[in-house]
Amino acid sequence: MTGYWDWVRFPDAEYAARIARVRVAMTGEGLDAVVLSDDRLTWWLTGFGDIGPMGSASRPRVLVVPAAGEPAFFVHRSTELCVREMSAVADVRTYRPLGGAPLDDLVAFLRERDCGRVGAEIGGQLRPGMAAGDVGGLNAAGFELADASPAVWAVRMVKSKAEIERIRQACAITDRAYAIALPRLRAGMTEREVAGLLRRTLAEEGADSGWAWVVSGRGEYDRIDGVVRDRAVEPGDFVFVDMGACVGGYWADFSRPAVIGRATAGQLQMQGVVAEVTRIGTEALTPGRTTAEVAELVDEAMAERGLVFTSRAERYGHGLGISVTERPDDWPNDETPIAPGMVLTMEPGMWTDEGMFHCETNVAVTEDGNELLSNAPLELTETA
Amino acid sequence: MTGYWDWVRFPDAEYAARIARVRVAMTGEGLDAVVLSDDRLTWWLTGFGDIGPMGSASRPRVLVVPAAGEPAFFVHRSTELCVREMSAVADVRTYRPLGGAPLDDLVAFLRERDCGRVGAEIGGQLRPGMAAGDVGGLNAAGFELADASPAVWAVRMVKSKAEIERIRQACAITDRAYAIALPRLRAGMTEREVAGLLRRTLAEEGADSGWAWVVSGRGEYDRIDGVVRDRAVEPGDFVFVDMGACVGGYWADFSRPAVIGRATAGQLQMQGVVAEVTRIGTEALTPGRTTAEVAELVDEAMAERGLVFTSRAERYGHGLGISVTERPDDWPNDETPIAPGMVLTMEPGMWTDEGMFHCETNVAVTEDGNELLSNAPLELTETA
Repeated sequence: MTGYWDWVRFPDAEYAARIARVRVAMTGEGLDAVVLSDDRLTWWLTGFGDIGPMGSASRPRVLVVPAAGEPAFFVHRSTELCVREMSAVADVRTYRPLGGAPLDDLVAFLRERDCGRVGAEIGGQLRPGMAAGDVGGLNAAGFELADASPAVWAVRMVKSKAEIERIRQACAITDRAYAIALPRLRAGMTEREVAGLLRRTLAEEGADSGWAWVVSGRGEYDRIDGVVRDRAVEPGDFVFVDMGACVGGYWADFSRPAVIGRATAGQLQMQGVVAEVTRIGTEALTPGRTTAEVAELVDEAMAERGLVFTSRAERYGHGLGISVTERPDDWPNDETPIAPGMVLTMEPGMWTDEGMFHCETNVAVTEDGNELLSNAPLELTETA
Repeated sequence: MTGYWDWVRFPDAEYAARIARVRVAMTGEGLDAVVLSDDRLTWWLTGFGDIGPMGSASRPRVLVVPAAGEPAFFVHRSTELCVREMSAVADVRTYRPLGGAPLDDLVAFLRERDCGRVGAEIGGQLRPGMAAGDVGGLNAAGFELADASPAVWAVRMVKSKAEIERIRQACAITDRAYAIALPRLRAGMTEREVAGLLRRTLAEEGADSGWAWVVSGRGEYDRIDGVVRDRAVEPGDFVFVDMGACVGGYWADFSRPAVIGRATAGQLQMQGVVAEVTRIGTEALTPGRTTAEVAELVDEAMAERGLVFTSRAERYGHGLGISVTERPDDWPNDETPIAPGMVLTMEPGMWTDEGMFHCETNVAVTEDGNELLSNAPLELTETA
């Protein structure tokens, strides 16, 4: 570890702490080991890798963290040197055949460590980097498989200071990109060109990667999670933008709307209400509440203003970190207690014929409140 | 379908043909249906989506193609409008709860269609976009699960003319980016800055996305599949670059080496030999041979020159398409017959103390030979 990878790797102590925390959570779940192969999880726990995702499925990386004894990291031999240089997990074991996980080696290791009940990536939004059939192979070898996701999420949901610092930087870059790029939107640019401008601005402001969604038009805004079009933006169009920078593998995620030209009084009024409710919801993201309680509070604030949340995303927010969407992410159904170290979004939305009124915030929860990481104004941007 | 998405979506007939081919392959494998949720596969077969991957695991998209009757596409309701606009599969069904696949709906649909044996993404480098536990839920509901990958790869390995055209464009962009960026490498730039320059150049030349790996130094080159460092390139360094543009979801993948300043006689000689063997291997990628036979031929050409392939990637090439690495991808072990429409790489490599001598080619196999898609010279670039 030479400092060559400081842009993406944390100090060793960070990985030791993460693995220790995973072990505590594992024990709580009655697991003798967890077997993890999502390249985001192996990167997060070993330090090997970059902002991903991996381009190839033929050389899966598999980390086994037993409850007792040191963890072991199984990688294809093509990548051995780099893993030995970067991995904070010292026990690196290589395999040679391409195409699948080294099942025999994994089974032997788990037996050596007397493991019976093994946590695997089988639920809760975890997706293994090894084939589902290889995960099943552990079961066929006699291990009792359980869902590793409660243990993993318990740790991932609560970020370290160093993790929050990366998200803080990602949010600051995204703030600057909104300030620079939104006023440059012009009639005649296609949605695809707008998204290109946004991603380029994120890169110029220092992002290691970035994403941007753009929905434009006058009605039919219900295209969230959609695909940018070669549709030219017209004067008077409402343009919804959602984007985020990535810094060292950690993401920002917040939206801002704009109007090409002057907004109508109705648009300004609706955005004002949504901004107000977003501020109320954002301030409520503090320890002592659950996500469901915050959702209820947002519903009440909307109701007081005569509105019912209409975004079809089905949630008021989600966790943020090494993925753009993390747990807790199903509000109002989710009863997760909000705790210091969580990084959360707040995003009540009103989708009407006049626009997608939605101005997401990102916060880091502190001991006694939260820190607002996204500082771009919540108001509608009107372009020249 | 308005033409708004021509950059990423193909004409309807393309999807009809792909689904028809998948059905033929399914029947050959004795499957009553396939259930596919990798967002690359659902995009490839329905037309909905973009160059991916999806950022969120909480709203999986699931395509069910039964052997008899029309396929159905299950998506979260937040994305319904865009799916109805883009999907060539007309039977779009929405679900509401977040976090998992709509298992009950999937089971009901498969029962309606009298399916018993169902192909799922459980092997062969397929990775489901739904949780492994949800895949297992189909088994628990009484269906016999089988690996869908032989049927899927049989179709994916053989590209249509329209698919090859995208890879042709991706390769042309990558060619231009090499010509522009390699001569600009200078001592003092870090590997990370070099990778940034390469990705920026790919974007400027028209790529929808792009990737670049850079390994520099004087020895210890064994860092393939590794991570770029904040190491400044020094005069005399050997710099290995591997990169590729993405056009409309289809990828290029070829490497070229450079030397900062003048190459040594030994470096020039070794690159010359590897280039010669690469040309021999490339020309051999024609119908009538298997990939293993081509690997043998490459081994012989190396042996005639007194060399043994030393790249630890463990292969001479792989398929190329909607992933950077596709089947067939395990040569010499892979006995896949080479067929017209396959897009393949050729990449014998010699990794010595003097450098990573490796200059990959990309070809589209034709009826009577192949078309070289990567035209950047195979020689070492010496920078000023």
